[in-house]
Amino acid sequence: MIKKFLCAPGPTAVPNEILAEMSKPLMHHRTPQFSQIVSENAEMLKKVFKTKNSVLTLTSSGTGAMESSITNFMSEGDKIIVLSAGKFGERFAEIGRAYKLNVIELKAEYGSDIKASEVEKALKENPDTKGVYTEYSETSTGVAFDIKNIAKVVGKTDAIFVIDGITAIGAMEFEMDEWGVDIAIAGAQKSFMIPPGLAFISYSDKAAEKMKNAKLPRYYFDLAKEKKNLEKQTTAWTPAITLFIGLNYALKMMLEEGMDNVIKRHALVAECFREAVQSIGLKLFPEVPHVRPTDAVTAVRVPDGIDGGKIPALMRDKYGVTIAGGQGSMKGKIFRLGHLGYTDKSDIVVELQAMELALKELGYKFEFGKSVYTAQKFILEKFPVPQVELSDSGD
Amino acid sequence: MIKKFLCAPGPTAVPNEILAEMSKPLMHHRTPQFSQIVSENAEMLKKVFKTKNSVLTLTSSGTGAMESSITNFMSEGDKIIVLSAGKFGERFAEIGRAYKLNVIELKAEYGSDIKASEVEKALKENPDTKGVYTEYSETSTGVAFDIKNIAKVVGKTDAIFVIDGITAIGAMEFEMDEWGVDIAIAGAQKSFMIPPGLAFISYSDKAAEKMKNAKLPRYYFDLAKEKKNLEKQTTAWTPAITLFIGLNYALKMMLEEGMDNVIKRHALVAECFREAVQSIGLKLFPEVPHVRPTDAVTAVRVPDGIDGGKIPALMRDKYGVTIAGGQGSMKGKIFRLGHLGYTDKSDIVVELQAMELALKELGYKFEFGKSVYTAQKFILEKFPVPQVELSDSGD
Repeated sequence: MIKKFLCAPGPTAVPNEILAEMSKPLMHHRTPQFSQIVSENAEMLKKVFKTKNSVLTLTSSGTGAMESSITNFMSEGDKIIVLSAGKFGERFAEIGRAYKLNVIELKAEYGSDIKASEVEKALKENPDTKGVYTEYSETSTGVAFDIKNIAKVVGKTDAIFVIDGITAIGAMEFEMDEWGVDIAIAGAQKSFMIPPGLAFISYSDKAAEKMKNAKLPRYYFDLAKEKKNLEKQTTAWTPAITLFIGLNYALKMMLEEGMDNVIKRHALVAECFREAVQSIGLKLFPEVPHVRPTDAVTAVRVPDGIDGGKIPALMRDKYGVTIAGGQGSMKGKIFRLGHLGYTDKSDIVVELQAMELALKELGYKFEFGKSVYTAQKFILEKFPVPQVELSDSGD
Repeated sequence: MIKKFLCAPGPTAVPNEILAEMSKPLMHHRTPQFSQIVSENAEMLKKVFKTKNSVLTLTSSGTGAMESSITNFMSEGDKIIVLSAGKFGERFAEIGRAYKLNVIELKAEYGSDIKASEVEKALKENPDTKGVYTEYSETSTGVAFDIKNIAKVVGKTDAIFVIDGITAIGAMEFEMDEWGVDIAIAGAQKSFMIPPGLAFISYSDKAAEKMKNAKLPRYYFDLAKEKKNLEKQTTAWTPAITLFIGLNYALKMMLEEGMDNVIKRHALVAECFREAVQSIGLKLFPEVPHVRPTDAVTAVRVPDGIDGGKIPALMRDKYGVTIAGGQGSMKGKIFRLGHLGYTDKSDIVVELQAMELALKELGYKFEFGKSVYTAQKFILEKFPVPQVELSDSGD
């Protein structure tokens, strides 16, 4: 028996309570019971997005919501700027080109980001830009983009600011309205702790204005239609009912903990993990200190001379810990662990001991046990000690 | 306590074994374990569709697959013929218009169908038709279209023949290749016995040829990309993992029973139900005998003087049996029960007794108990008696 842990940057571990909730007998979606789920979810999602706008739930992967953020707000030939320094930034550019937009791709190396000043320059050179599209947390590289400052720059123009927050929202500080983000996207299988199959999207009044003139064709991902249905406490199409029900439970867990606490927990777990891996000589992939690593996923460079592709395989098959390798051109060069959703101190220790066992087997030279010890020390010194009343210890 | 039964024409009841299977700890989708699920499902789906072509699984409702059957095979301005005699036929026309196709809508009254001879005539008048789109089982009216003969007519032309088999496939006789259907669509939450969130689509070589010149934009629903990924035992985007796993179990149940037996069971259940409701003076909605009722869903006319909207509400809230009312202009005029997926003799009796209680309360005059008795008699005389070895009866 190998005990299993899902520690990838999505899909992430689903708490047993949620799995149990989703395995109740199926309810029909055109019922008062399900309508209540739909409207409770929508209200709670607003608190996660920190927005007064509606948050819509689509039955699709996150990519469907990314597509909808283009097709509902743009027309053929429209100019958009895409910030591209990883696989998911590139996806925005690909979708834009598939719909015949004029895509200006601001490119940076994988592991780097694109600064607000560069976006400002690009916007000055392209005053007819209709939208700026970017990742918040680029899952493929472990880089956090400086959304807050980029939003300020875009906010001065007529362009809408669109962020893919699929790994970020629910894991990192995010203030949709206060920061001036026009469209924000999130995904079920990340910090929302449920299996994949749902994506969330919210748009501002400025974006709603753009929608009025947007001529790109759409049907399944028609956000205006989805919004009209949400007002009637339902969905445009048959929804993934069990996932809506799991989401209801998950959002209640998140809001009971308090979003500020949820974000702090993610930040601490990620910081602890980063410190621990560096303590055995490993290097982070983001070009720290120029670039800020995301708290949602840590990308670690594979040390020289080590077969990088084997790290995730060994960790999973021998030690039960599923993480992710590098994608595309990053294959074998980095490995990635998620700190998302149902994540806590214990996960860090489980991940690090499995990582150390794998690295040792692959011939990496380091002080065995040190990353785990570093994490333990960090936990002792920096994690809050829960103030709970002790129950009877039993006999 | 009110014991609950989901007897709608989708979503349909999910067997407990499948709910349990889906509630196991979440697995990652980029693993050999999940790849096996993906390829097993694809092979089994071929046996349900009766096709040599790949059957693709999309994470979306059925409407997403309907959209993909247009966007992947057509270009702006292309002419299509849509057979429209219900809400879902109309949806094909709506999608076509959303993508600026030249849509010829062959319309018939709700409750009726469109004959192969009418399609033949329309094709002669429109020799530049690129595709003929139709429902197999029109869920909103309970009508089965004569797919087999319409396929023959379309097969003589250059147009592709596209059927929405969302409620039909897995419940009614279907031979994709033998009948000459070019694109067939099915949905998870119908006879596949799992919660909503997945749609299935398969296309013929003739359709693949059309795809080469199809210029409509698409990204999330790019079938060529999905097919390329299926060949690598994976999916283009993060899939609804738990539903794929439920589907794996469900398909094994279906193929163990044998598709012929599955279809026969649906036919018997539907025939029994139709006979029973008519025995207390109720009328079917399809214009029998001119039109064939589908075996997937039975639509019953609300008797004169009865408040039709109350039938589903009473059956659900007082007697625990969820069925569906009429949609759109049919609201209050019909009510609909599904015979889909995990359906057997016992369901008929449960449905009929609840229906009788509701009708009695609403003041309908009939011989109380007669529809249930009619069903019992039908079951005794026409259902096969299972040949099983008796186990110890216990003490």
